[in-house]
Amino acid sequence: MTMRRKKISVIGGGFTGTTTAFLLAQKELGDVVLVDMPQNENPTKGKALDMLEASPVQGFDANIIGTSNYEDTKDSDIVVITAGIARKPGMSRDDLVQTNQKVMKSVTQEIVKYSPNSYIIVLTNPVDAMTYTVFKESGFPKNRVIGQSGVLDTARFRTFVAQELNLSVKDITGFVLGGHGDDMVPLVRYSYAGGIPLETLIPAERLEAIVERTRKGGGEIVNLLGNGSAYYAPAAALVEMCEAIIKDQRRVLPAIAYLEGEYGYEGIYLGVPTILGANGIEKIIELDLEENEKAALNQSVHSVKSVLEILV
Amino acid sequence: MTMRRKKISVIGGGFTGTTTAFLLAQKELGDVVLVDMPQNENPTKGKALDMLEASPVQGFDANIIGTSNYEDTKDSDIVVITAGIARKPGMSRDDLVQTNQKVMKSVTQEIVKYSPNSYIIVLTNPVDAMTYTVFKESGFPKNRVIGQSGVLDTARFRTFVAQELNLSVKDITGFVLGGHGDDMVPLVRYSYAGGIPLETLIPAERLEAIVERTRKGGGEIVNLLGNGSAYYAPAAALVEMCEAIIKDQRRVLPAIAYLEGEYGYEGIYLGVPTILGANGIEKIIELDLEENEKAALNQSVHSVKSVLEILV
Amino acid sequence: MTMRRKKISVIGGGFTGTTTAFLLAQKELGDVVLVDMPQNENPTKGKALDMLEASPVQGFDANIIGTSNYEDTKDSDIVVITAGIARKPGMSRDDLVQTNQKVMKSVTQEIVKYSPNSYIIVLTNPVDAMTYTVFKESGFPKNRVIGQSGVLDTARFRTFVAQELNLSVKDITGFVLGGHGDDMVPLVRYSYAGGIPLETLIPAERLEAIVERTRKGGGEIVNLLGNGSAYYAPAAALVEMCEAIIKDQRRVLPAIAYLEGEYGYEGIYLGVPTILGANGIEKIIELDLEENEKAALNQSVHSVKSVLEILV
Amino acid sequence: MTMRRKKISVIGGGFTGTTTAFLLAQKELGDVVLVDMPQNENPTKGKALDMLEASPVQGFDANIIGTSNYEDTKDSDIVVITAGIARKPGMSRDDLVQTNQKVMKSVTQEIVKYSPNSYIIVLTNPVDAMTYTVFKESGFPKNRVIGQSGVLDTARFRTFVAQELNLSVKDITGFVLGGHGDDMVPLVRYSYAGGIPLETLIPAERLEAIVERTRKGGGEIVNLLGNGSAYYAPAAALVEMCEAIIKDQRRVLPAIAYLEGEYGYEGIYLGVPTILGANGIEKIIELDLEENEKAALNQSVHSVKSVLEILV
Repeated sequence: MTMRRKKISVIGGGFTGTTTAFLLAQKELGDVVLVDMPQNENPTKGKALDMLEASPVQGFDANIIGTSNYEDTKDSDIVVITAGIARKPGMSRDDLVQTNQKVMKSVTQEIVKYSPNSYIIVLTNPVDAMTYTVFKESGFPKNRVIGQSGVLDTARFRTFVAQELNLSVKDITGFVLGGHGDDMVPLVRYSYAGGIPLETLIPAERLEAIVERTRKGGGEIVNLLGNGSAYYAPAAALVEMCEAIIKDQRRVLPAIAYLEGEYGYEGIYLGVPTILGANGIEKIIELDLEENEKAALNQSVHSVKSVLEILV
Repeated sequence: MTMRRKKISVIGGGFTGTTTAFLLAQKELGDVVLVDMPQNENPTKGKALDMLEASPVQGFDANIIGTSNYEDTKDSDIVVITAGIARKPGMSRDDLVQTNQKVMKSVTQEIVKYSPNSYIIVLTNPVDAMTYTVFKESGFPKNRVIGQSGVLDTARFRTFVAQELNLSVKDITGFVLGGHGDDMVPLVRYSYAGGIPLETLIPAERLEAIVERTRKGGGEIVNLLGNGSAYYAPAAALVEMCEAIIKDQRRVLPAIAYLEGEYGYEGIYLGVPTILGANGIEKIIELDLEENEKAALNQSVHSVKSVLEILV
Repeated sequence: MTMRRKKISVIGGGFTGTTTAFLLAQKELGDVVLVDMPQNENPTKGKALDMLEASPVQGFDANIIGTSNYEDTKDSDIVVITAGIARKPGMSRDDLVQTNQKVMKSVTQEIVKYSPNSYIIVLTNPVDAMTYTVFKESGFPKNRVIGQSGVLDTARFRTFVAQELNLSVKDITGFVLGGHGDDMVPLVRYSYAGGIPLETLIPAERLEAIVERTRKGGGEIVNLLGNGSAYYAPAAALVEMCEAIIKDQRRVLPAIAYLEGEYGYEGIYLGVPTILGANGIEKIIELDLEENEKAALNQSVHSVKSVLEILV
Repeated sequence: MTMRRKKISVIGGGFTGTTTAFLLAQKELGDVVLVDMPQNENPTKGKALDMLEASPVQGFDANIIGTSNYEDTKDSDIVVITAGIARKPGMSRDDLVQTNQKVMKSVTQEIVKYSPNSYIIVLTNPVDAMTYTVFKESGFPKNRVIGQSGVLDTARFRTFVAQELNLSVKDITGFVLGGHGDDMVPLVRYSYAGGIPLETLIPAERLEAIVERTRKGGGEIVNLLGNGSAYYAPAAALVEMCEAIIKDQRRVLPAIAYLEGEYGYEGIYLGVPTILGANGIEKIIELDLEENEKAALNQSVHSVKSVLEILV
């Protein structure tokens, strides 16, 4: 009966990876290993040490180390992949594909080597294709390879709705299907404030504007920052998924999951409502879609597949 | 009987200011206004929005805005100053003095104008002199102008000791007097693991090495990062001080306080043990010092004063 | 600019009152005064002291005192009323009316005397009538006199649904209108698991059984305990309402509010969806009801009114 | 790689056991099984259900069940024993010995049968002798059988000191050796406010009064309550010990540990400073004692041994 702490490795020591590491440690979900390339080893160590030095004040017990050596990730319970090049202003997400595919393959080989029983959560864009790449490269069962997009998309949607109605974010829920960002299929009819359908609380055109703002949510931050992309909300989303798995919470969360017939699709990774628990994706929840939703989802799938075709 | 949320403004939208804003919001200590210069307005807005978009997932209710307009800070309960140029590798802390003094004066004028009843916590280096500058410029009573250094220094010390002994950071305490960094006067005899004096648990030379590493703690991170300085642990330290005041906790925390005879000094800001509560610095705790401690503190004061002389 | 801690008085030192006091202190929402009758002064002091002695270990800073002297409640920000005789097995809620009405009047006079600007939250059963009594006796504006029932009813409903679907309680929402317990009007169509309407996830007869179990939820605990009634979930509900007000969260929570035309009723206290924030009940949310819901609500109102008629 | 939730069984469904169960669940340390005798099965189920119904509002995911069937405790990671008859006003702790010894033996047999790899934490009084009984009956290694007294004793001491100095409980530490209550050996010289020795902050006679009040701390609550004994602070203490083990925190906490030569004693359970982590008691910390401390500890050991002689 071991009380061994969980171990979570975060691949990619950029802002998102670093923030993810900190939020994981804050929640005492386990010890954290932050990994970046050898040329970034010192900065990665510096970030890890700085975070660790916050622990006595923030009151958490979790080790955080920075490294460029995958041996340090050995026997991780979860590996979060944030590595890859970031989307820059004006860059289409598709431009990232081939570069990030190579990164995914190389990272995945290390994960398979050192943590063959781990769960993998992928954030790197274009996330549907990158999760697919990691799935194929790892040979892991589908429940253990998961992509993040919907938790972030709905977090943005919920933020905008909370502002619109001047209500607590705690009482706003959102619901999305399909790809990330532009390809997002929001199910507004499944989105509520205190359980009350948003459609009865917000005029249609305002609601549509919020949906549109959500779709462009990543770009909005990119444009404001001028140099770099969002990292707080993406990190929070990753941490919520890790927590659901580590604590076996059986949360109902949108995730990028491998479809084998669900929603009528086969052999692709797509954003769908799932149950996340001790076994990773424990179930994909299938919903009856309305015609316009089906069409939008199909469009999203089309877009995801067009990226898959770019993969080498 | 108003239930108005507390309002905390963080001046300086760099990494420390941003992280401080996030940690304040996470704890629901109040609404947060992150302020930077007009040329950085968009990035500051972007960071604030990204943090806000994490709130539904992290489960906190706090507004966070980014701005370059001090009007947005109106009626802040606390203002945290992180603005100023950062220490770069090789740069002595004293080099920063005159540039940052100007920043402090200009920031303070805005604080006095918009939040005349606020508490001010200063992080900007050289922090003893900068806190002094803010005190003089503001005309605020001394209990409402406070500098941060000891919470951070002891956090680093506690981290190193916890590593050395392989114990929980929760059970390690540390104690410092005097200036920040090189001028720090550690009171090792007041530092413990689970209440047990460290001197009985760690060999003298190891303990001295830990003290020395603590002194150079800021530089260690600067050197590792290569470009930039620590921000997680400094932000955590600032937030603990804000929390002590907002929640009237009457914490015993080291802080940079204005001395009027305490420890034999007059008219300078120096790191001393204080009680932090609803009235800011409610008390300076005076300790009997041993001869070597007195000498070290005197050396530290000398160093602080030599910086004060640079002020224009 | 005062950082005075909030002060919350809890009237009634039974299990619910005591648990409420503890949960309030745990969250550091303010200092807590637990009040009971003079003959219970010592046990009340004992409970308060025991809770306070847990604070160093649980890590909260909040004073908790027990008293029988209302002077100690002076200038409370919120007063929670849990006093009154408890429902015993077999006792109808209506039997409690006249005894508890007297308690409410006497308690309210003390609140008005010592905390004329406070917000009052009433738990005592029959809660609709008791809240009405406090409202009339206090002369306070309607936004400052609030009854609790819906947060508890939905908490039970959410628990049962989470068990039924084996999902996290975090992702289950429920929605009720009308009176407490038997008179509860559940709006199942506004209740979800991860945003997905429960009606599509749970067979109708199972859902009906869950609704029925929720209605009888208080009685289920009473019958199991044999001697006494539920206190953990009621206390948690009260604390959530206090938190919404103290932190100005603008939560969407069901509460017993004074109706002046909303839902077609006038001059009664009834369970409705509200926005709870710094001003107490900031808004009553009106929903379009279906015919059967209207009928059930009308029945509930009839039942509430029949209790009001018993008031002397 | 299993993410199975930890499982903690709490034996004894009285107030302490129930409160312990709730605090464990609140921290999401694992699923909780509350066990009491068959004649109390329904009340135990009722308490567990009531606590579970608080979970959606308090926001924790942890199952809590009440039972009288030890099969439900199968494969517990930790078992906490609060069972036994309680100390009543006027009853000496020694009177409890033989009755509670029988309870310990019977409970331990069930633990060994269903959770042979568990850690056991004993609260039942007289706790030194009861922990010894469980150790002998279980045949478990000494690191897995632990008694609680010092965390509670120091919590009380810290509370009284915080009140005396009007300071945050977060900054007060205390230190005790030896038996519980009257036999407690306080090491005031290892007790601090913000790292500053209490002896320099509190006059000797006041400090002695606080020590004496701490010694009688359990009795003070018993006398105030009139009927029953403390349960909040004891429960908090138990939960802190469970957390240290489950999260492998390596906390420095006082615990009742089996001595094999430490402090010069052999074959008894006694309160000493320990390191609590994944392996239960990972180390006993030995301190150099002053003569008067040695004498007091010897007196305490004498008292513990006199109880052991009563064991049948």
